[in-house]
Amino acid sequence: MLEKIKKPNDVKKLPEKDLPLLADEIRQFLIRSLSKTGGHLGSNLGVIELTIALHRVYNLPEDKIVWDVGHQAYTHKILTGRKEEFDHLRMEGGISGFPRRSESSCDSFDTGHSSTSISCGLGYVKARDLMKQNYSVVSVIGDGAFTGGIAFEALNNLAELKKNYVVVLNDNEMSINKNVGGFSKYLGKIRTSTCYTDIKMGVTSALQKLPRVGENMVDTLRKTKSSIKQLVIPGMFFENMGITYLGPVDGHNISQMIRVLEEAKRFQGPVLVHVITQKGRGYGPALKEPAKFHGTGPYIVKTGQPKKKSGPSYACMLSDVLCEEGKKNKKIVAVTAAMREGTGLAKFAQQAPERFFDVGIAEGHAVTFAAGLALGGLHPVFAVYSSFLQRGFDQLMHDICMQNLPAVFMVDRAGLVGADGKSHQGCFDLSYLSVMPNMTVMAPKNGWELQEMFRFATAAKGPVAIRYPRGAAYTGLEEHRAPLVRGKAEVISRGKSLALLAVGAMVEVAEQVREHFHEKGVEITLVNARFVKPLDGELLRELSADHRYFVTLEENARIGGFGEQVADFVREEKLPVEVAVCAIGDAFVGHGSPDWQRKMLGLDFEAVTQRVEQLLGEDSGRTEAVELPTGE
Amino acid sequence: MLEKIKKPNDVKKLPEKDLPLLADEIRQFLIRSLSKTGGHLGSNLGVIELTIALHRVYNLPEDKIVWDVGHQAYTHKILTGRKEEFDHLRMEGGISGFPRRSESSCDSFDTGHSSTSISCGLGYVKARDLMKQNYSVVSVIGDGAFTGGIAFEALNNLAELKKNYVVVLNDNEMSINKNVGGFSKYLGKIRTSTCYTDIKMGVTSALQKLPRVGENMVDTLRKTKSSIKQLVIPGMFFENMGITYLGPVDGHNISQMIRVLEEAKRFQGPVLVHVITQKGRGYGPALKEPAKFHGTGPYIVKTGQPKKKSGPSYACMLSDVLCEEGKKNKKIVAVTAAMREGTGLAKFAQQAPERFFDVGIAEGHAVTFAAGLALGGLHPVFAVYSSFLQRGFDQLMHDICMQNLPAVFMVDRAGLVGADGKSHQGCFDLSYLSVMPNMTVMAPKNGWELQEMFRFATAAKGPVAIRYPRGAAYTGLEEHRAPLVRGKAEVISRGKSLALLAVGAMVEVAEQVREHFHEKGVEITLVNARFVKPLDGELLRELSADHRYFVTLEENARIGGFGEQVADFVREEKLPVEVAVCAIGDAFVGHGSPDWQRKMLGLDFEAVTQRVEQLLGEDSGRTEAVELPTGE
Repeated sequence: MLEKIKKPNDVKKLPEKDLPLLADEIRQFLIRSLSKTGGHLGSNLGVIELTIALHRVYNLPEDKIVWDVGHQAYTHKILTGRKEEFDHLRMEGGISGFPRRSESSCDSFDTGHSSTSISCGLGYVKARDLMKQNYSVVSVIGDGAFTGGIAFEALNNLAELKKNYVVVLNDNEMSINKNVGGFSKYLGKIRTSTCYTDIKMGVTSALQKLPRVGENMVDTLRKTKSSIKQLVIPGMFFENMGITYLGPVDGHNISQMIRVLEEAKRFQGPVLVHVITQKGRGYGPALKEPAKFHGTGPYIVKTGQPKKKSGPSYACMLSDVLCEEGKKNKKIVAVTAAMREGTGLAKFAQQAPERFFDVGIAEGHAVTFAAGLALGGLHPVFAVYSSFLQRGFDQLMHDICMQNLPAVFMVDRAGLVGADGKSHQGCFDLSYLSVMPNMTVMAPKNGWELQEMFRFATAAKGPVAIRYPRGAAYTGLEEHRAPLVRGKAEVISRGKSLALLAVGAMVEVAEQVREHFHEKGVEITLVNARFVKPLDGELLRELSADHRYFVTLEENARIGGFGEQVADFVREEKLPVEVAVCAIGDAFVGHGSPDWQRKMLGLDFEAVTQRVEQLLGEDSGRTEAVELPTGE
Repeated sequence: MLEKIKKPNDVKKLPEKDLPLLADEIRQFLIRSLSKTGGHLGSNLGVIELTIALHRVYNLPEDKIVWDVGHQAYTHKILTGRKEEFDHLRMEGGISGFPRRSESSCDSFDTGHSSTSISCGLGYVKARDLMKQNYSVVSVIGDGAFTGGIAFEALNNLAELKKNYVVVLNDNEMSINKNVGGFSKYLGKIRTSTCYTDIKMGVTSALQKLPRVGENMVDTLRKTKSSIKQLVIPGMFFENMGITYLGPVDGHNISQMIRVLEEAKRFQGPVLVHVITQKGRGYGPALKEPAKFHGTGPYIVKTGQPKKKSGPSYACMLSDVLCEEGKKNKKIVAVTAAMREGTGLAKFAQQAPERFFDVGIAEGHAVTFAAGLALGGLHPVFAVYSSFLQRGFDQLMHDICMQNLPAVFMVDRAGLVGADGKSHQGCFDLSYLSVMPNMTVMAPKNGWELQEMFRFATAAKGPVAIRYPRGAAYTGLEEHRAPLVRGKAEVISRGKSLALLAVGAMVEVAEQVREHFHEKGVEITLVNARFVKPLDGELLRELSADHRYFVTLEENARIGGFGEQVADFVREEKLPVEVAVCAIGDAFVGHGSPDWQRKMLGLDFEAVTQRVEQLLGEDSGRTEAVELPTGE
């Protein structure tokens, strides 16, 4: 079947009875293809039938399917003619792992972050109606993404809608981890207490208004109060919000879904279709270890084992130090926004379950919850990816920093993240964290230092953010273990004339550059910045005595980043030093390998070496503007 | 009665029958006192009885009352012994208009922004239980604040709670405007379809579990589908989330509330007490014009008329140009997050109601909704206060800028806001907006220019943010009307040696300084920056030919702001110019008059003049570190 799908709507040409076979072929294709490239496996295996049903019912690109998060859009990409591109999925020049309007007119919204699809969908709907157009809009959102507040904000706005708009709730009981919270429990009750919507009886008749029936019954019910109300009436939650509920529907029965979606499409007003799917469907290893197969590198199909092992990640380093310090200091508690494994909190969660909190995909709440924990006398540690912490920007500012509360932010996936691309790059945190008064901002050079910084942060009296990259922790420079002191950098090697001032992961690159010049008989200074805020002004002053150049190195946006702050200090202090800033230019960085990204951005060994050579050779002038890899 | 209240818990000494009298005295006191100082009148008049009831039931400071937003805590301040301070409410050195832990141990959380109280309260609860303490925690949140997603994120986390925690839902049908959305409609149904909880029958008995009763009934109900479910069973929404619902309760009946709160306090698990109050209660003008009396300046008690009129605000300028351009360009649509009047959208909302969207207190959703509107072919304008737009940081980055969508952000209350203090200062937007790739960032010098910028922005192909201050629009420099060109500044006056580069409101100060030196026979250059991003590099290069000093002026944080960006450019280009940055240091700025704030921060006429004199006199060296007014 699969070879017949060359372009959008080709799936409509197949007989309906063959669709389960198509689903099976896509499943096998994804399992094989992702075993070579890696990618988001589990979520994609869960929505194959749902995607086929959507593509049967809707016409692309006229109709708009808005995929929440977007990592589950692989079948959508296949059905819109991008199957051949899967060899280069998430690689430089290849297709993105998320919907991208630049790839296909069938992609209606560029995504990556969670819980935005209803807001965007509602925008499309209002625009359509105002412009008197006629297309359909459907947002597909997981039950995990539903715990993100913006989804609720949008849901709250649907009630007044008089025209058609469909939200498909793809309910697999999972975000990356098993979902948490009252809403999830509520869905669980629907799942267990009702059978799937009986299509034969006709959904339309189920939608008929029965205005007088049962009022007395409800009246009686009212008086029975609490417990009785907890018995579930399917969809009451949504109906209360003014949204018509259809479901639950078996998310692996294509024919049933087609019929329900067709009914939903005809309804005038907001409709929620509740679809039950199974994450990792059809692949044993993904069913067994859903968190591992949420996003995966290349693996052996038969066993599900990864093809290559990498060294322990920074998240592993955090895991160990958290468990160790957590034993000594009972005030330490840990918070995650649905990323127990990815952020390295799983071991602590086992060790001290009562001190571990998974709040769901809810970064804003996680930050303010941490503020409450701190006010109550604990020392919370919120481990979170850099690009997702952006969602707690105001809560960091207003609820943590404004009150100078002791809380630790372990900012993982900072800097360049590689394959996930634009939406996941952690390239802004040094800027957005530095602007917050009272915030201390740090970055470790290697795994040892991450653990030292953690100890420092959990003993601090105010907020501390520690940012570190994805992937294996750097194990070099292990012998450099200068004691950690607030606002003090670490001098790795003292030369003269030129000093490399490197932040976090860039210390590794800087060390290679230093070594290179050392071999040529030129001794330059290498400083591990450690603190981006506060800066080590004393050291900068001291170095200015026998250095003519400071070269700053960071995997962060230039604007508001470390380099600009160093330059600002040098200028204010009138130090006789020229500052060269190596940072990320003003653009979103596309997907590809981190090495390639660093090279394109002028942040790799070659580029930095060249820059240093220029300065030492007193070739003045600005370096060439770097072409940014923004073409995803 | 009121004179008997000198310190926390004094209210417990009064006989219960006298409490309505106390409430009345507080009401009269607030109406009189705020007529002199201004402040948040309406919300405070609504919660007097509720606050008295809370202070009777809970023991302060041991128990924690977390006030959402916090502008409604005036009665709380009075009952904790701060009545005498109301003469200096929101003034420099006086008490804040919001809870401040530095003011009283009875204030448990510093607030200002909306929807955070459940997250914080849950943090307190978890800390209390882990530390085996015994106090009570209660969060008081309005139905308006409930539309903010973080409140839902937190609510979702309550279900598993086994210990007591009380959320008081203060339902007055209002945020600043009448509330919107499905949740609000849902509350409306409860209000109209049920009578107040009958206290005499005993709330405890109402909480009894009746496990078998009515199951058949529910079963029947299930089968009747849609419409019947919309009939309201009070509190079903919350019960579905695993939270016990009590209510609705009359929020002006102190005895009733005391009894319900006492029951709620004993319950093991999360309880929501639904209290119905009336915003502006007891003061005719506030009942009649709730939006006006949400936050007000001094007024005449008898009529409610403001004591002094100020000139048209920037919001008025926006109002006019939006209506005018909106007539010509049907693609222009306007979005507000529950601030129709404050942001100047009311007139447009009347003129083109179908193109006006109030999404409720939901800034994140507002931004992504705007993205959807833009994708659908419209040109959305989201008018919002600077400090509240912080809540849409990730949505701006990920949903607007990553896709370079045409949307306009009218960023009101940027810079120093005066009386509202710390939580409301708009001092970070130039930094957090500049770091976003594809974003254009502008600031007008006066009312005319705001309108020009609006026209420019609604014709642009990508995202544009325009930031401007609270209060009357500057009407000076009207004769300077250089055409607006992307990335080009406006030279107001061309001198030599020293150039003032001023952003937005600081152009007025800079003009005074220029005039001052002109009178002394010294001609300095004055540039109205217009664009913070992109910078006018060409002009900077040109000016560097005959200028030795650039003095940048902005009401924004120094880190990542305009001055640092200018300095970065000058350094990279090796322009032979010294840059002096006048910006806000690294701290939160407390409440007081804007003039006083500007003076304290070294951003007023005297400070800038002195700085220029120093430079022209070639007194080099860094200016004195400024003491920041952070003592609120």
